[in-house]
Amino acid sequence: MGFFIPPPKVYKPAAEVDLGPDSDEHYISPNVKAPRVAGFLVKMLAWVLETPVLGWIVLGVLKRDNLVYKLVSDAEIPEPPLFTATHTWQAIQEQSVRVTESRLSPAERVQEAVACVPAAAQAQLEPAAGFRRWTVRDFHRAYRSGQATPTMVARRFLAAVEECSGPDLNMGFFISCDPADVLRQAEDSTRRYQQGAPLSAMDGVLVAVKDELDCLPYPTSGGTRWLGSARRCAADAACVAQLRACGAVMAGKANMHELGAGTSGINPHHGATRNPYNVGRVSGGSSGGSAAAVCAGLCPVALGADGGGSVRMPAALCGVVGFKPTAGRLSNSGLLPLNWTVGMPGILAATVEDTLIAYAAIADQSKPSPLQPELNLPMLTRTRSMPSIRLAKYAKWFDDSSEDIRSLCGKALQMLRTHYGWESVDVTVPEIEEMRLAHYVTMGSECTASLAAKYLDSMSEVGWDVRIALSAYGSFSSRDYLSAQRLRCRQMYFHEKIFETADAIVTPMTGVTAYALQDDALSTGELDYINGAALVRYSIAGNFLGLPAITVPVGYDRGGLPVGLQFIGRPWSEATLLHLAYAMQEACGKKVLRKPKVHYDLLTKE
Amino acid sequence: MGFFIPPPKVYKPAAEVDLGPDSDEHYISPNVKAPRVAGFLVKMLAWVLETPVLGWIVLGVLKRDNLVYKLVSDAEIPEPPLFTATHTWQAIQEQSVRVTESRLSPAERVQEAVACVPAAAQAQLEPAAGFRRWTVRDFHRAYRSGQATPTMVARRFLAAVEECSGPDLNMGFFISCDPADVLRQAEDSTRRYQQGAPLSAMDGVLVAVKDELDCLPYPTSGGTRWLGSARRCAADAACVAQLRACGAVMAGKANMHELGAGTSGINPHHGATRNPYNVGRVSGGSSGGSAAAVCAGLCPVALGADGGGSVRMPAALCGVVGFKPTAGRLSNSGLLPLNWTVGMPGILAATVEDTLIAYAAIADQSKPSPLQPELNLPMLTRTRSMPSIRLAKYAKWFDDSSEDIRSLCGKALQMLRTHYGWESVDVTVPEIEEMRLAHYVTMGSECTASLAAKYLDSMSEVGWDVRIALSAYGSFSSRDYLSAQRLRCRQMYFHEKIFETADAIVTPMTGVTAYALQDDALSTGELDYINGAALVRYSIAGNFLGLPAITVPVGYDRGGLPVGLQFIGRPWSEATLLHLAYAMQEACGKKVLRKPKVHYDLLTKE
Repeated sequence: MGFFIPPPKVYKPAAEVDLGPDSDEHYISPNVKAPRVAGFLVKMLAWVLETPVLGWIVLGVLKRDNLVYKLVSDAEIPEPPLFTATHTWQAIQEQSVRVTESRLSPAERVQEAVACVPAAAQAQLEPAAGFRRWTVRDFHRAYRSGQATPTMVARRFLAAVEECSGPDLNMGFFISCDPADVLRQAEDSTRRYQQGAPLSAMDGVLVAVKDELDCLPYPTSGGTRWLGSARRCAADAACVAQLRACGAVMAGKANMHELGAGTSGINPHHGATRNPYNVGRVSGGSSGGSAAAVCAGLCPVALGADGGGSVRMPAALCGVVGFKPTAGRLSNSGLLPLNWTVGMPGILAATVEDTLIAYAAIADQSKPSPLQPELNLPMLTRTRSMPSIRLAKYAKWFDDSSEDIRSLCGKALQMLRTHYGWESVDVTVPEIEEMRLAHYVTMGSECTASLAAKYLDSMSEVGWDVRIALSAYGSFSSRDYLSAQRLRCRQMYFHEKIFETADAIVTPMTGVTAYALQDDALSTGELDYINGAALVRYSIAGNFLGLPAITVPVGYDRGGLPVGLQFIGRPWSEATLLHLAYAMQEACGKKVLRKPKVHYDLLTKE
Repeated sequence: MGFFIPPPKVYKPAAEVDLGPDSDEHYISPNVKAPRVAGFLVKMLAWVLETPVLGWIVLGVLKRDNLVYKLVSDAEIPEPPLFTATHTWQAIQEQSVRVTESRLSPAERVQEAVACVPAAAQAQLEPAAGFRRWTVRDFHRAYRSGQATPTMVARRFLAAVEECSGPDLNMGFFISCDPADVLRQAEDSTRRYQQGAPLSAMDGVLVAVKDELDCLPYPTSGGTRWLGSARRCAADAACVAQLRACGAVMAGKANMHELGAGTSGINPHHGATRNPYNVGRVSGGSSGGSAAAVCAGLCPVALGADGGGSVRMPAALCGVVGFKPTAGRLSNSGLLPLNWTVGMPGILAATVEDTLIAYAAIADQSKPSPLQPELNLPMLTRTRSMPSIRLAKYAKWFDDSSEDIRSLCGKALQMLRTHYGWESVDVTVPEIEEMRLAHYVTMGSECTASLAAKYLDSMSEVGWDVRIALSAYGSFSSRDYLSAQRLRCRQMYFHEKIFETADAIVTPMTGVTAYALQDDALSTGELDYINGAALVRYSIAGNFLGLPAITVPVGYDRGGLPVGLQFIGRPWSEATLLHLAYAMQEACGKKVLRKPKVHYDLLTKE
């Protein structure tokens, strides 16, 4: 192209990059050059980008201004491409774990997980000192004692969904919810409890499922208006099937950003998912419906999918736990193929204990070693006595967030040091913005390759903001894609090196808290790449490198909006991450837990 | 684009494709729509393709006409992408093998290989019944007996190279050959023999190295005029280093098609490599110099690299053995990164015995299991007694070659049945032309991503035919690339299924024999995609799926040009392939061996 393109970056060999705290590596705060657009402007931009030649030129300018050419496409990168983020088995020493036998059933694994959870958390069904959400074990205990039945809870759930979906609240939690199907499952569960034979501690527990995962009897829309009919949903996703085998009640398909192609959770077809802490704010996304439903008390656990922070980021914005295990630890079977190399299912839950229980239920142990190690479950009962955890922190990155987030996350980390005696080490994580761009190129390219044959026929049914995203997604060359994979190789090397000195990397989960949901965005969606980049700033390594990562709430900003802290672990170190998250929750989470504006008590309410 | 594009192919799931002999899968003979162009027309086409907009339109038409959009880019493919052709270890039962201990030195492995070779082949240094080329063991025996010395042979070699590089013959075998360096190595070797301490049976044996592999003291040009100075060659390639450790004498850098971006071996910078059987014919490529040098008796063994048949195809055209082991069996270290997922080093040799010896020398045993199994060497002494080999043949594909090739390869296969009692089974290998296009998209995309930053500055120094190839290579989108990888996934499945019923797939090596080297191509190169497609028709599975494959000469067509037969094996079945090739050589090869027009006897000549 004839227009000026800045000279490409010449990367030095990864092994020559200094990862120490005094590295001269330059931290680039995402320098997004794209104004927020919504309403009519979104439609106009979509039209421009879809016009041949004109569209290519405008996309070229946008990619140039956002440094895609300089940092990815045209860059000189010494490393070969690394195409996938799957890890072969590595022997890592994890402390205080229970190694499960392979080939346990999901229900048996749930029972193993329950045995790992501290008895102290088995509180009575009475108001705690502060607010708390009911957990899997609260429901299970109530069902066993007869204090409640799954049918009773399901009825309350359906009434709540009806209420908050109505015009007054318009929360946009669900895309579809079939009352008859929910009731039928709940009645089956109730019968099992009556017969004294619940399948597991999850029997009768409601679980919302992001509409990116197959779950009968619903079509899988991926947040669109057209994909549900263009693609047949023939069976439950593997994760859903495992939860069913534990007796869980599938509560309906949670709302999501259309095709996962955005971070706000604003969906023009199925309604914007509103944040239960402030209905004028976004939920985040793309698993916004799952996060908000857990936040609002509608279910203790929900399934999401995380291709670029899509589980962890809305979890942080809604003040719940979000967990994405190592790539390969959960089966992608039945997950909409919006991409192949960065996305996987993830768990949203009100507490770390419930995260662990759901994780045990849906872990995939079907692949033979060496691709998949044994499943280690953390003995949360022993978290306090773990002697030697080391946390890596990159100060410039850690501090590239709002003042409140920086302060809350800093205090939280300090608490871990004080309460548990765990060390932190200063490191440099290089090329974070470069990785974000490379991940964007990867995700966009894979979404195009996977779905273009389908959506090109249905473009008029695609939301305007997503049409713009799809134009960008479809504009990448094979060279762009391969350059991105070469950056993946560098990052994998950097992270492996960092994990030689630390057990996990600690960051805030997001750079900003839930931002305003503006009216002009409701029907067209909006493009807000500046807030978008701030939301995913800390998410990418989890996806691009397949590393396990978890977010746990650590407080609220001055606007009363939740803030999450993230731990990123080495491959297969889920147990360590759950220990860390549990320690964090114990040190600061529960104390400060505030009740959302929109919240339902399905257990003790008459 | 506005012009008519045929509707994309909708692939059915791979598991539903019938692989039996009566499958209704349609065999597409490569229907290349691109006229042969050479001379001024090549320059004009390069200019058109490098012109923005106009170039994109013309490339679009070419890709449409060659079914790239229909069969790859826009196709609906049920499978996810498979990005690499590397195979994890599989336990396969190979017959009559010698399992080498890991961590043997290259020289020790050579001695193991020598022990696997029939004593009957250890003939005297006297004219055989027909023509034969001297083997590694012939040289070794002559050096040990004092009948010749490495220095003597090196001098004869240098004189021969000088003669055939001169204006009379102008064979174009080498890009660079440093007489002082060759002599120095030979003198060192001579001293070792004088001291009675040769390093191995390869000590003093000349080996030509394709100019795609690093070999000190030479720059690595990749057949270009500019890459040798743009990229520093700091060390020997792993294969070269291992051969040196066996005492082999690196004889210089063999000519190749520029950047491996063509199949003819015509190089405008370093001269066209001529076929020793007929100097008016091409050598094939891209490892044309290596194949022709072995053919002409200049060395018993040469190294090549095979990204799309580039070792096997010129080997067949020059009547020698060409062998590409399983991806991962040889180290790619020091190989120019013209691509990452399809290419690897390969061996060219006059006989199967020498192929085995060189293979043992350069096999890479540095990677820990599970990525790389133990090295099995075939006991060629026991080939005749192997009871249960099954060969798969796809008749429509097998017969898609010139009449002479079809007939010679058919007879050769019949000989295997008769002499050894080995069975053949009829199968269908589906989507061969689709795989060829997917491989082209893959190789082109990777070449662009790897080298564009370098060659874009040196475009005026790139040959005209390669400029055209680079324009096509650079035109692929990330969707094209990912669609190609989805086809790789299908093909891997098809081949795994076929290998459940057979030990190897048997095909001709090429669809045509060496075609005419026309004068108008000498300075500009030529584009002859029709002959090109016929040359690589049987090569692609070896590269795209990383399968081991070997070609062995089985006779000559009516024009006196060599014909090769190919065996494609399951992953890590190198020993079986070498058995097959040896059986084939014994059954028909040596009997019919004819002396090339250009040939040097380095051993018995005074």
